Amino acid sequence: MGGLGDPVVRIDVEASDGAARAGRVHTARGSFATPCFMPVGTRAAVRALSSADLEALGAEVVLANTYHLMLRPGADVVAELGHLHGFMGWDGHVLTDSGGYQVFSLDPKVDDHGATFRSTYDGSTHVLTPEGAVRVQQLLGADIQMVLDVCPSLPSPPEVVRQAVERTAAWAARAVEAHRPSREAGGTQALFGIVQGGVDATLRAESAQRTVALGFDGYGIGGLSVGEPRHELLPALEAALAELPPDRPRYLMGVGDPVGLVEAVARGVDLFDCVLPTRLARHGTILTGAGRLNLRNAVHARDPGPLDPDCTCTVCARWSRAYLRHLLMVQEPSVLRLATLHNVHWILRLVERVRCAIGDGDLARVRAEVAAVYP
Amino acid sequence: MGGLGDPVVRIDVEASDGAARAGRVHTARGSFATPCFMPVGTRAAVRALSSADLEALGAEVVLANTYHLMLRPGADVVAELGHLHGFMGWDGHVLTDSGGYQVFSLDPKVDDHGATFRSTYDGSTHVLTPEGAVRVQQLLGADIQMVLDVCPSLPSPPEVVRQAVERTAAWAARAVEAHRPSREAGGTQALFGIVQGGVDATLRAESAQRTVALGFDGYGIGGLSVGEPRHELLPALEAALAELPPDRPRYLMGVGDPVGLVEAVARGVDLFDCVLPTRLARHGTILTGAGRLNLRNAVHARDPGPLDPDCTCTVCARWSRAYLRHLLMVQEPSVLRLATLHNVHWILRLVERVRCAIGDGDLARVRAEVAAVYP
Repeated sequence: MGGLGDPVVRIDVEASDGAARAGRVHTARGSFATPCFMPVGTRAAVRALSSADLEALGAEVVLANTYHLMLRPGADVVAELGHLHGFMGWDGHVLTDSGGYQVFSLDPKVDDHGATFRSTYDGSTHVLTPEGAVRVQQLLGADIQMVLDVCPSLPSPPEVVRQAVERTAAWAARAVEAHRPSREAGGTQALFGIVQGGVDATLRAESAQRTVALGFDGYGIGGLSVGEPRHELLPALEAALAELPPDRPRYLMGVGDPVGLVEAVARGVDLFDCVLPTRLARHGTILTGAGRLNLRNAVHARDPGPLDPDCTCTVCARWSRAYLRHLLMVQEPSVLRLATLHNVHWILRLVERVRCAIGDGDLARVRAEVAAVYP
Repeated sequence: MGGLGDPVVRIDVEASDGAARAGRVHTARGSFATPCFMPVGTRAAVRALSSADLEALGAEVVLANTYHLMLRPGADVVAELGHLHGFMGWDGHVLTDSGGYQVFSLDPKVDDHGATFRSTYDGSTHVLTPEGAVRVQQLLGADIQMVLDVCPSLPSPPEVVRQAVERTAAWAARAVEAHRPSREAGGTQALFGIVQGGVDATLRAESAQRTVALGFDGYGIGGLSVGEPRHELLPALEAALAELPPDRPRYLMGVGDPVGLVEAVARGVDLFDCVLPTRLARHGTILTGAGRLNLRNAVHARDPGPLDPDCTCTVCARWSRAYLRHLLMVQEPSVLRLATLHNVHWILRLVERVRCAIGDGDLARVRAEVAAVYP
């Protein structure tokens, strides 16, 4: 029991394979299976998809971006329209980030109080503080909110990474204080802390310990997949995971490429989000069991076969590579959705295979298969 | 029985109200109800929709554009991939235009042989002849193909309209000759002639008589809604319809605004196509029972209600004006599809209401309702 009182989420681990675990996260809304890939719905919509599409795909959790939604349409508008679930017409789970990641990409003025930044929509000036991030996310009403953290890109000088750890810890404590009243009033919105520390294993461990000491509902590992090579990412991830309590969900933020996902699961991560599957789709890059496929290649112009012969998605069941490539080449907007449907289905099915493999004690096989075709 | 042998389509008129008629068109593929609005699938796709969407909407016939498809991906590619039905993954009916309308908008060099034009894709030079249009449309494999006609914009000098009628008649005869062998070989692809004549009732009647004399499976009325006011369109339409045989389908090309559609049905038209509902949707203009709605208007920013309170579409059932406006303002591609789904549903339901009203001898009421809210 931590600074927020009793946790409002619970993870039941149902199977494990080494450090990898498969289970269910239970919340006030219901539950979802883990490992879990969360499609990114930046502006309260996964690009090119509707919430009906997400339902049909079997997605269980969608991530939405606080930065974008606080500026457009505004958190108060979202709250008035039934919070994110009502606004989006989505009964599944929603997780919101704190806005920090986007704000720090805008080169903000940062001090102990918070981060001052200019809106990419209209140039207006805004301040994001740990308390403000909690308040905005309460208005957005996601099932899980994240604390405001300081996320340096990598590589960064050691003193920058150290300061990010310090400020993240101080802001995390303020976020707990800011969120506590709503929890004491019976609120069921979860708050996750975030571990920083760059690729320094010692700093990662320290950041994890200090975050855990504050008693969050779950833990994000942030500040990875921000420029560092994978051989530096994984040890940093391991150092953080070693300090996290097994009875809390663990979320690796911003990672969702096939190899990164599978390798992180193998080390004990439960939750993932990543724009990769959706962004790749919009550029005509298709995820398949044989690796990435560039749909623009002329070799597909007369190919009557599906995007991936082993895929069970509605797109592969109905349309050929030739047709989808045609739509892409003549810039028909429908192809954005069809390619996205396929890629999200593909990554969700990969996660499902990973879950089954953990149950079968066979995760090594899936890791080897993915590593053989993905960089 | 005309130059093509026995017709391969039949219209069964099941109800009438004045000149208006409701029935079914029967083809080798199956049948579809009339009056019928055909969504425009320019490049073998209705913009922002998939063929699964069209199925769910209950669309029965889709129009595809010969001009675009002969250039991208090429008629031979479409043929190789199962013609338009196989290529699009669409089991419903398809009608292809002849390409003439697009070609004539490119200011082509026209002589008795055909029209020479430059591709808008890569500037390459192409020639479209009556025989070539038949051949390309055979490769595309639509259920119904249209003859190559000459379509002047309005207003045009009388001699231009006269020459268009002459050349359209000569080209129609050549199209019949070009298509006859495939029909004699048992082919079931229908060929429709096209009536021209601008807004000159005498010329319209003459063009209709000369087209009918060639014995087509059905008749298009072309060259209307190309710049002339509605009070000039309707008499020209009536003059053409008066000459068309009642046992053949009648297709008013390029008209599909609510008033134009209802008024043309009242005069005996069976088939329509128009980009209006889909194009309006992509610009955020929504068709409703209370008239057009501009979704960009700030008044909708916090509106929890559906696009149209009387609408039964999947979009109105799930999402608010506020959410859809948000998607539009932040340029989420999904809103193109959602607004298009609504507008196509709305126009298809209008046609359904018109069909029912004809059966009830009550079309005047629908005409009055539509005229009260649409320009």
